[in-house]
Formats: sequence, structure tokens, C-alpha cells
Amino acid sequence: MASEAPVGVFDSGVGGLSVLGEIRARLPFESLLYVADSGHVPYGEKSPEYIRERCRHIADFLLGEGAKALVVACNTATVAAVAELRERHPELPIVGMEPAVKPAAAATRSGAVGVLATTGTLKSARFAALLDRFAHDVRVVTQPCPGLVECVEQGALTAPQTRALLASYVQPLLAAGCDTLILGCTHYPFLRPLLRELVPAEVELIDTGAAVARQLARLLGERGLLAAGPAQAARFWSSGEPAALARVLPVLWGEAAAVAALGC
Amino acid sequence: MASEAPVGVFDSGVGGLSVLGEIRARLPFESLLYVADSGHVPYGEKSPEYIRERCRHIADFLLGEGAKALVVACNTATVAAVAELRERHPELPIVGMEPAVKPAAAATRSGAVGVLATTGTLKSARFAALLDRFAHDVRVVTQPCPGLVECVEQGALTAPQTRALLASYVQPLLAAGCDTLILGCTHYPFLRPLLRELVPAEVELIDTGAAVARQLARLLGERGLLAAGPAQAARFWSSGEPAALARVLPVLWGEAAAVAALGC
Repeated sequence: MASEAPVGVFDSGVGGLSVLGEIRARLPFESLLYVADSGHVPYGEKSPEYIRERCRHIADFLLGEGAKALVVACNTATVAAVAELRERHPELPIVGMEPAVKPAAAATRSGAVGVLATTGTLKSARFAALLDRFAHDVRVVTQPCPGLVECVEQGALTAPQTRALLASYVQPLLAAGCDTLILGCTHYPFLRPLLRELVPAEVELIDTGAAVARQLARLLGERGLLAAGPAQAARFWSSGEPAALARVLPVLWGEAAAVAALGC
Repeated sequence: MASEAPVGVFDSGVGGLSVLGEIRARLPFESLLYVADSGHVPYGEKSPEYIRERCRHIADFLLGEGAKALVVACNTATVAAVAELRERHPELPIVGMEPAVKPAAAATRSGAVGVLATTGTLKSARFAALLDRFAHDVRVVTQPCPGLVECVEQGALTAPQTRALLASYVQPLLAAGCDTLILGCTHYPFLRPLLRELVPAEVELIDTGAAVARQLARLLGERGLLAAGPAQAARFWSSGEPAALARVLPVLWGEAAAVAALGC
């Protein structure tokens, strides 16, 4: 496997671009491929079998494009499919997401941590195991957030409807005394500016993008797979409307780029 | 003191804009004032007495503009002057910078931490005390970086000369086995993209901007001084060439703004 091969990153939609940005910052010499499964967004309320089928399909596509590593830049897809992907590709470096329960438990001073995530993530055995392992001494208040992924997909990061929806999800967590909020979905880091206006200044907001980029750097380094650069321009595919992804890239990725259609 | 009063932030030049950005992200309802003492940059090689005199002058100016709190967004000025400023203004919330020795000591796995900073910071008793307190179990390799502040002041964040200078400072730290580098000057976070290209992917880069914004939030919160917003547009002054600061604001602050002259 050539070290100059690209890293494949995918998500149910545009949320994984928050992770892609962290990877670009950490690993500027890596060439990046990104698939938005926007034809099937949101994953949050889909069945695990359905999500696994989608992940198999996308992983095969990215490997066909020469990916030397995969990043499942979606908490819900990680829960449903990362174990199966690792079984199917035992040699391949694969990094998944998980809610930042451990750092949040370390950061809270009130002893109450709030988790914003999709229903699929919150209901998963993987999330229960995380709480079991790292949240013994803190109270964890979970909040499913239907509709929020769709707001980010549309690029409506500061719209009044987004604000109202987000406020309705955050309010119960604040009322419960949470001083630390976990952004448990890769779409939510794009809502940080809005969140900052909705929560007191003392409240910590914690996501996992930087830790995932660090873990990818470690796995590539151990295998001698770090690229020496220069990187190729990132390439983008969407299973939904390529034009819709192209429209939000300048805001969510910081530059414009062409988007190709992903079959099926 | 009205909670809607602004927060005053200052630096020897434009480096403190990296801290100002963290404050804006953390505290979007606060109105911000910024003084760049560019007529007297760099502080790194000036005497402590000289720097204290400059800090008194700027603090008085910012208080005259109604500041309810001060952020000394410069490591060198913090070393020289923050104790005196706190004596002169015992009631005022004042936040200073300090190199992130504690988090770096926690992050290193090789046991060797590198510190990029100005001569003034590295020679200070305050820095020695930090090492004494938090760096018992790690090797600390310090590297003064003359000329680097000037590169950032000119907005030359990716110029070949900046790259060559930065490489010459980083190389000895890597050769000494450092896997964690402390950015011990507020100018250096603007060089993160360049640094990322110059150090291996496993190396951690640590600065203090986010921690300073968090500390400011805490001090304001304790005193009931957090603004309810909306914030006024940030206001900028320079003791050097106002036009020079105005020229780099779009890059270093993310938007254009008018800059007034600070009488010196």
C-alpha cells in the first residue's frame, strides 16, 4: 500500500466535513476523498442493517478509488458498522467516531454532563459501554436531536428555525445542571457559534474531531503510511444531489470544489 | 461596572489577535477592544522596565475607553507586567498568558517537550517557576525564536523566509526527541499550518488561547460581569502604523475593520 494513496472519509451527509477539516489541519500532506451519503441522510433513525449495507457499499467504493485508510466520520455509522468493516478489512486502518464521554467526565465541575446525539447513537450498546467505562462518577443526561442534522445539511447554521430547535434541545440539559455538553454527532460542530450564544459562557462544548485526526495520524505512522506530500486536492462525491453538496462546500469546507455523483 | 462594558485586550503587535479570536468564539456577546503596540514591537528583547511602562500606558488607555476587564495577550508582557497591573487595579479582572507547560507535560509520550518562545519569556523567573511546578518528570528543551514575531507582524504566514526560519527553530527540538511543542508566544498560533508541514504528524502543538478565553469567562461570571449582548463591533488601535494593522486584519482577524492611532 503506497503511502501517497489517499485517505477515504465518509458520513451520512455533510457532518463529516467537520472531521475532514481536522484531518486536513493535522495531516496537510494527506490526499483526501470524501463521500456524503446524502441520498440516505439522516442515518439517525435508520436500522443498523440498513446503515451497514450503506457503509459496505461506500467503503468498497473508496477502496476502489485507492484509499489506504478509512474514517467513518459519523457516530451513528460507527455504532452500526465499524466492527463489521474491521472484520471485512482486517489490514486496513479504520477510525470511527465516539462521543467524548471520557474527556467530558474529566471536564465537568457540576458533575452533570449532557449528550446531544442522534437516537441511533444514544440507543446503542456501544454508547452504553462508554458510559459504563467512563461515566461512573458523573450524571449523564442524554438528548436526542431529530431535525438538527437536516438543518446542517441545508447549510442553515444560523437560521431562526435552527436556533429554535437547538435551544429546545439544549434547555433541558442546562436545566438539569449540565456544565459540559458533548457534541455526539459530526454535524453538530458546525453549530458551535450558535450553541455559544445559547449556553452560559462557563459551559464546555466537547467534540471528537481533533482526537480522530490524531488517532488517524497514529495509525498511519505505525504502519509507515504517512504521505510525504504534497497532497492532491480533496475529491468529493454525493449519493444525493451533487449540486447541493457543492453549494455548501464553501461554507463547511472553506473552499469550492467539484462534486461527482456516487452511484446508488 | 456595567456588564455591557467592553473587554480590553492588548499585545505588542498582532499576535494577540489569536487570543482575541478565541475570546470571540467563547464569549460572542462581549464587546472587544484591541490595542496592538506595534510602534514598540517586538517586546521579546526589551527590558522588563520598558515593557511595564508600555503596559501601564495601554492599560490606562483601555480603562479610559471603559474596559471592565483586561487580557494581556502577550507572554512577554505577562511576565514583565501582569503582577504590577494587578497591584494597580486590584478590583479589575486581569488575565495573562503563560506557556502551556502543564498540558504539555501531560501530553508527551516521549518525555521530551519543546518550548518555542521569546528570549524574554524563556529567561523569566515566572517560566522557571512553571517548569519547577509542572515539569518534574519531563525533559524541557527551550528554543528562543528571534525574528518570528516580525514574520507574523508582516502577515508572512507561509513565506519561504518564514518557513526557513521556523524550520531552523523546530529542527533542534525534533532532534532532541520532543513529541510535544509549546507555542509560547501569541504570535505563533498563526504559524500552525506551516508548523504542521514541518513536524511529524504525531507531534502535538499546544497553545493557550482557548484556556485564556475560558479563564476570562470564569472571572467575568464570578463577578456578574458577563454581557447579555448583542456585542458591539470590535474596535482596534495601533501605536505603530494603523494602516499596517488594517492590512493584516482580514487574514488574522477574519474581517476588515477600521484602525485608529494610539498616541504613545
